Amino acid sequence: MRSTSRAETFPAHTPAASQIFTTVLSHGPLTRLEAARRAGLSAAAVTKAVRPLLAAGYLAEDADGDARPALGRPANLVRVDGGRALFIGVKVTGDEVIAVLTDLCCRIRLARRLPVTDHGAKAVLTSVAELTHELRTEAEDFGAPVLGLGIAVSGDVDRAQGTVRYSPFLDWRDVALADLAAMTTGLPVVVDNDVRALTVAEQWFGAGVGLSDFAVVTVGAGIGCGLVIHGRLVAGAHGVAGEIGHVAIDPAGPLCHCGNRGCVEAIAGDAAIVTRMREVTGRQVTDAAQAVALAHEGVPGAREVYASAGEAIGRGIATVANLFGPERVIISGEGLAAYDLFAEQILDSFAAAAFGSAARCDVQTRPLPFEEWARGAAATAIQSFITSSPTPTGKG
Amino acid sequence: MRSTSRAETFPAHTPAASQIFTTVLSHGPLTRLEAARRAGLSAAAVTKAVRPLLAAGYLAEDADGDARPALGRPANLVRVDGGRALFIGVKVTGDEVIAVLTDLCCRIRLARRLPVTDHGAKAVLTSVAELTHELRTEAEDFGAPVLGLGIAVSGDVDRAQGTVRYSPFLDWRDVALADLAAMTTGLPVVVDNDVRALTVAEQWFGAGVGLSDFAVVTVGAGIGCGLVIHGRLVAGAHGVAGEIGHVAIDPAGPLCHCGNRGCVEAIAGDAAIVTRMREVTGRQVTDAAQAVALAHEGVPGAREVYASAGEAIGRGIATVANLFGPERVIISGEGLAAYDLFAEQILDSFAAAAFGSAARCDVQTRPLPFEEWARGAAATAIQSFITSSPTPTGKG
Ligand SMILES: [Zn+2]
Ligand SMILES: [Zn+2]
Repeated sequence: MRSTSRAETFPAHTPAASQIFTTVLSHGPLTRLEAARRAGLSAAAVTKAVRPLLAAGYLAEDADGDARPALGRPANLVRVDGGRALFIGVKVTGDEVIAVLTDLCCRIRLARRLPVTDHGAKAVLTSVAELTHELRTEAEDFGAPVLGLGIAVSGDVDRAQGTVRYSPFLDWRDVALADLAAMTTGLPVVVDNDVRALTVAEQWFGAGVGLSDFAVVTVGAGIGCGLVIHGRLVAGAHGVAGEIGHVAIDPAGPLCHCGNRGCVEAIAGDAAIVTRMREVTGRQVTDAAQAVALAHEGVPGAREVYASAGEAIGRGIATVANLFGPERVIISGEGLAAYDLFAEQILDSFAAAAFGSAARCDVQTRPLPFEEWARGAAATAIQSFITSSPTPTGKG
Repeated sequence: MRSTSRAETFPAHTPAASQIFTTVLSHGPLTRLEAARRAGLSAAAVTKAVRPLLAAGYLAEDADGDARPALGRPANLVRVDGGRALFIGVKVTGDEVIAVLTDLCCRIRLARRLPVTDHGAKAVLTSVAELTHELRTEAEDFGAPVLGLGIAVSGDVDRAQGTVRYSPFLDWRDVALADLAAMTTGLPVVVDNDVRALTVAEQWFGAGVGLSDFAVVTVGAGIGCGLVIHGRLVAGAHGVAGEIGHVAIDPAGPLCHCGNRGCVEAIAGDAAIVTRMREVTGRQVTDAAQAVALAHEGVPGAREVYASAGEAIGRGIATVANLFGPERVIISGEGLAAYDLFAEQILDSFAAAAFGSAARCDVQTRPLPFEEWARGAAATAIQSFITSSPTPTGKG
């Protein structure tokens, strides 16, 4: 988290405090006892952690308890006060910058998009700053401070350093995005890989709630994967993890931009599908939408391109399942627009390649618009807010 | 853990107690403060957890402090009292049953082997019982009770249920090994996958000490993998995890016993190497030792068989690294006997297939005899002892 000003900080920087906050955030109003049970903490620890959060207004106690009357003793229900603070989340794609304003509950209040014509970091940063400014201006009506900005970018992102080490789709190398955006916006900024950000959103609010081991697999321009193991996002000791797109499944397969042959992404990523579609059909195909259209029209060979892509994705997912044994794999991403074209192959090849009871993993699809990815970026900003130290010299 | 008698139980069944015990066990004598820091607990929690363990004699305080005089205040050093209890660990291979007697520090005191001629569960169980009886008889001289038995078997093992669901090398299906062994020996028994057991030993005492994310990859009859992520062993939601042997890297590759083509194990497992060696050299080859000998003799084509195996293993390791980004990968297993024949290919193909900074993962080899695997089984018995509830109705 990089910041240029002394912004408001979270009052309780203990692991228990952020854990309880996150538990209440993702499960909704809970009694202290229930929060303790779900977080695996003692009731005393929860009571202690909750106190400063109530005092600072981040948590509230529902006197009327209308959110969960069935539980009884409604005065004891603790919830996150969504209106207490605001956050901005931004997802950068090769075509657009998508920004959302969320409250402290990470509910989307406003959403904005700007097209990206120039991929350069400077131009993208200008768009991010413009949308941030616009959302902050409108946020004034909500009567709560904007406390952080999260930016999600595809590729190799070092969250701790706040830098985009390499983003193939944007053609960025070593961009100190967090520092630059903090200077431009004056907000604390966290930068993370977009799939990891989406996975945080799924863990807190989506199909991953309550699961200790699951994966989010995104298909589209790239093939990505966010892994949650033992209840925590896997970040990789050297910042690389979840690279399902570069699981190499065929040494005779097409060359990948990573230098290897037969990576899942080199077979099932948008660019690979477009290229293969041109070769197979002899038609002019310039983007994924056209490729999907050709397959839907029944142009000879077009469906087979998607069948191969689905097979590659299914084998990639089976590899993840065989290695980590997740309870669930959530397939999402803009590539789901072609889902009817390769769903069967994904599921069949997963079932064939899954080892033993790894096949019992629940593979499901969830179409999520880019605003949901931007929400994931806002979630990383909230996460950073509730876990970062108040000052550089503060206790960790 | 299955038991037929009311054996001695660990006095403090809280997560903090087992965590502190494990921390002191793997790091050696520590002050309470240092133990708290390493376990991420408060000093008060450590003091509270340590008290009953000291009272029961599982932990001891070093008055002389000669283990770590540099730290000062030696009276405060807490260590595991190895002599307080004994455990037996057994590793079952296709050829042998290897058993060790360890103390509570999991130091090997005695080791015994028996050849396996009949793979049937009954015959193996008889050998396990025989070695267990022999070690318990000799253990009487050590003046400490034997508190548990751990058995490590390759294949799909359900530790919670104590059953071997499927072990290809033993040709076992649904063997309730923990119950059977508990009935035969009268000891509490834990059964686990052999690679997971070895990984526990590496985490506590080996090349994994202090690492939160690492993998153990074993090469030999099977190609296995134990994963530690966020400091905990990955078990898989459905009991399957670490199946690096069934990462499929070549759809045109040889058929695997799992039904797929081109699995790492179907290229680099002992049986695959022996088969391929026969095809390539036209010689009679019946086991891995003969295959290694042919390659060392320089028989045409023999070295290429190992080169392909090394390449497959390296790609399997790269897949593990690309997906979860471990700090270290430890290669072990009886297949290391051929290490000079494929080390270069393993490292080269890992480096080529590792994505970005995943290549910075420290890939190292560690030749570990089967006694070390049996020690891993003893470690799982210790682990089970310090985490299991005293009675079925006891608080968790
Ligand atoms: Zn690639
Ligand atoms: Zn296989």
